[in-house]
Amino acid sequence: MDFTPKSEIETRTYNFQKKLTDQGLDGAIIVLNSDMFYFTGTVQNSFLYIPAGGEPVLMVKKSLRRGQEESPLKNVVSLKSPKEIPGILAAFNYTGFDKIGLELDVLPFNIYKTYKKIFPNTEFSDISPAIKEIRAVKSSYEIELIRNALGVIDKAFLAVPSFLHEGMLEIELAALFEAEMRKRGYSGGRKMRAFNQDFFFGNICTGNSGFCPNFFDGPVGGLGVTVSHPQGAGWKRINRNEAIYIDYTCVIQGYTGDQTRIFCIGELNPRMVKAFEDAVLIESEILKVMKPGTPAEEPYLLAVKLAEEMGYKDNFMGYKEDKVKFIGHGIGLELDEWPILAKGFKTPIMPGMTFALEPKFVFPEGAIGTENSFVMTENGPESLSITPEVITYVKTNSFTS
Amino acid sequence: MDFTPKSEIETRTYNFQKKLTDQGLDGAIIVLNSDMFYFTGTVQNSFLYIPAGGEPVLMVKKSLRRGQEESPLKNVVSLKSPKEIPGILAAFNYTGFDKIGLELDVLPFNIYKTYKKIFPNTEFSDISPAIKEIRAVKSSYEIELIRNALGVIDKAFLAVPSFLHEGMLEIELAALFEAEMRKRGYSGGRKMRAFNQDFFFGNICTGNSGFCPNFFDGPVGGLGVTVSHPQGAGWKRINRNEAIYIDYTCVIQGYTGDQTRIFCIGELNPRMVKAFEDAVLIESEILKVMKPGTPAEEPYLLAVKLAEEMGYKDNFMGYKEDKVKFIGHGIGLELDEWPILAKGFKTPIMPGMTFALEPKFVFPEGAIGTENSFVMTENGPESLSITPEVITYVKTNSFTS
Repeated sequence: MDFTPKSEIETRTYNFQKKLTDQGLDGAIIVLNSDMFYFTGTVQNSFLYIPAGGEPVLMVKKSLRRGQEESPLKNVVSLKSPKEIPGILAAFNYTGFDKIGLELDVLPFNIYKTYKKIFPNTEFSDISPAIKEIRAVKSSYEIELIRNALGVIDKAFLAVPSFLHEGMLEIELAALFEAEMRKRGYSGGRKMRAFNQDFFFGNICTGNSGFCPNFFDGPVGGLGVTVSHPQGAGWKRINRNEAIYIDYTCVIQGYTGDQTRIFCIGELNPRMVKAFEDAVLIESEILKVMKPGTPAEEPYLLAVKLAEEMGYKDNFMGYKEDKVKFIGHGIGLELDEWPILAKGFKTPIMPGMTFALEPKFVFPEGAIGTENSFVMTENGPESLSITPEVITYVKTNSFTS
Repeated sequence: MDFTPKSEIETRTYNFQKKLTDQGLDGAIIVLNSDMFYFTGTVQNSFLYIPAGGEPVLMVKKSLRRGQEESPLKNVVSLKSPKEIPGILAAFNYTGFDKIGLELDVLPFNIYKTYKKIFPNTEFSDISPAIKEIRAVKSSYEIELIRNALGVIDKAFLAVPSFLHEGMLEIELAALFEAEMRKRGYSGGRKMRAFNQDFFFGNICTGNSGFCPNFFDGPVGGLGVTVSHPQGAGWKRINRNEAIYIDYTCVIQGYTGDQTRIFCIGELNPRMVKAFEDAVLIESEILKVMKPGTPAEEPYLLAVKLAEEMGYKDNFMGYKEDKVKFIGHGIGLELDEWPILAKGFKTPIMPGMTFALEPKFVFPEGAIGTENSFVMTENGPESLSITPEVITYVKTNSFTS
């Protein structure tokens, strides 16, 4: 398995320590797996202390051996209980904490209370915005990992015509599609930072199941197989002449690619074909105006303007009251990273930022659109997705499963 | 899709309201999807207020239409922002809150802070122990759902000999095994309540990969395909004469089954065969002594005693320092429910409680053992698992994939 290079970890730590210093913090305690992996190269059950200056200390509960193997950090030590943290840090001459940063956007209240007991005289502040800001700009090492994820998802999309057939269930298609990625290393570690977003692999909707909204903060919902997880593929049979909408993540070595493609057995009605072409057109118009420094809301505002001019007011990014208010999102160790391409977000999209763009339409007869993953470069956005951006028409005999 | 019957929701609410009254709370605000589903029958993006007396109010952000369809609750209303909660509740005559219960074991600190702003004069307390206690005892409706999950996992285990072959990668086996469950409705909603436990479907280890511990709080780890998610199946090729250890969850309609079976291409060495038989023996000894009211720690203490007498001190429930300190865990909407069958847990195991029992051994040459799901009845534990509890020997030609 590939370990994160030491130089990567050092650069990330350096950038973070500048933020800690700017905020007048003594240091930060990191526990969330995605942040943990970013700053240490391991997700063994651990607590990480990053001081504003000096070497970080990784305190591993389980498995110490793997933590030591996987992380290039110098100080990787054993810990049995969080109570030991102050003692362990004192041994590294880190004492007298006035202000410590915590991931307060994800840390459960009861764990926060534990820290309060362990550090009764310390003030805690939310360090997650600083982490999100640093993580938003990817190194070339990270960009290659995202590119790998999109290489794997491409293989899965290319395999679809080999198993898609009329009469199969959406969930059967999902099982086969997911297996294509799993066997190539989809790690299962797909993550969302937002609380309570029970996101699984992705979303397959066919025909009118694409009209069904759900809890998830995305333009297209899907019925799902059960009300306890009402997302993505369901029990609907796949018919001829309907849009087969496949929007999936692929996580390889921790990094997430995100892509949507449309398939059809037979032919699509002209309105859906036109909507697909218009989605691709909106995407290309967005890409034309994006350059380093473009504020994150601009692509969204442009997309909405174009979609409304095209007559899709009720259909763009969801149907009527169930619309979502973004056109894209950062991708990396999490699916909901910065930048958020939505109204009100002024953050400039800088070189190294990676994001998915997903102009989509929802009609009573189905969902349609496109999604690709990009990295901003000095010369504008570069696509990391390699799958041809077309509707794939599949000819099959009729089966019943 | 099957909706949760109204009578189920009413009973659950009634039991919970008794707890709220006992604790002197005005009510509780519920948001976690597993609790939300339990008390409402939906997981649409919502806030649920359950008063100590009176009708609950479900405030749905997205999708209101599905929330109204899926939940049998009387009051299902629209909400755009949590700020509206007090106003909405006032319209139902719920005002003047002194003490409100929250799920403080899972609620992120920043969301807690939002509630503090919305309810500046209200005291908050942790209602999660009360929820866990109620949820631990399943109705016959819930037990049937868990039985369904074990029916699906059985089909996946029975299918293994049709695709397992020498030389395939662990991750290829995982992809095919998971697809068997996905196509039958594995919903993707597998959940752990504990923070930061990035658990995926389950765990396949073969031969010495079963010796590899990891972050996860289970007896067997697995290498995984990447250090960013170092759990379960990895890139190892499957060889003849080694233990193929498959420990998987299956979630059907929200309810979790958990089961482990052992496969082998060729034959296993006598030590591993003996260890398998001893694991089954430990399981049957535990089942003999368990009856309604047995304290949750007793099966664990008995199992450790038996394992040590058998000479497995260093191998039982993990290898040496990486052992876990339980023999089983509650199962239901989450994989880590009550009762916890571990030292120090005195909770009586009562009729209706569902749990997995998993005596397992770890050796340098691999992991072996058994796991089944059970429900406590008036007459003692009844197995919900139906797959024969034997090592399945598979004869195959040698392929390379």
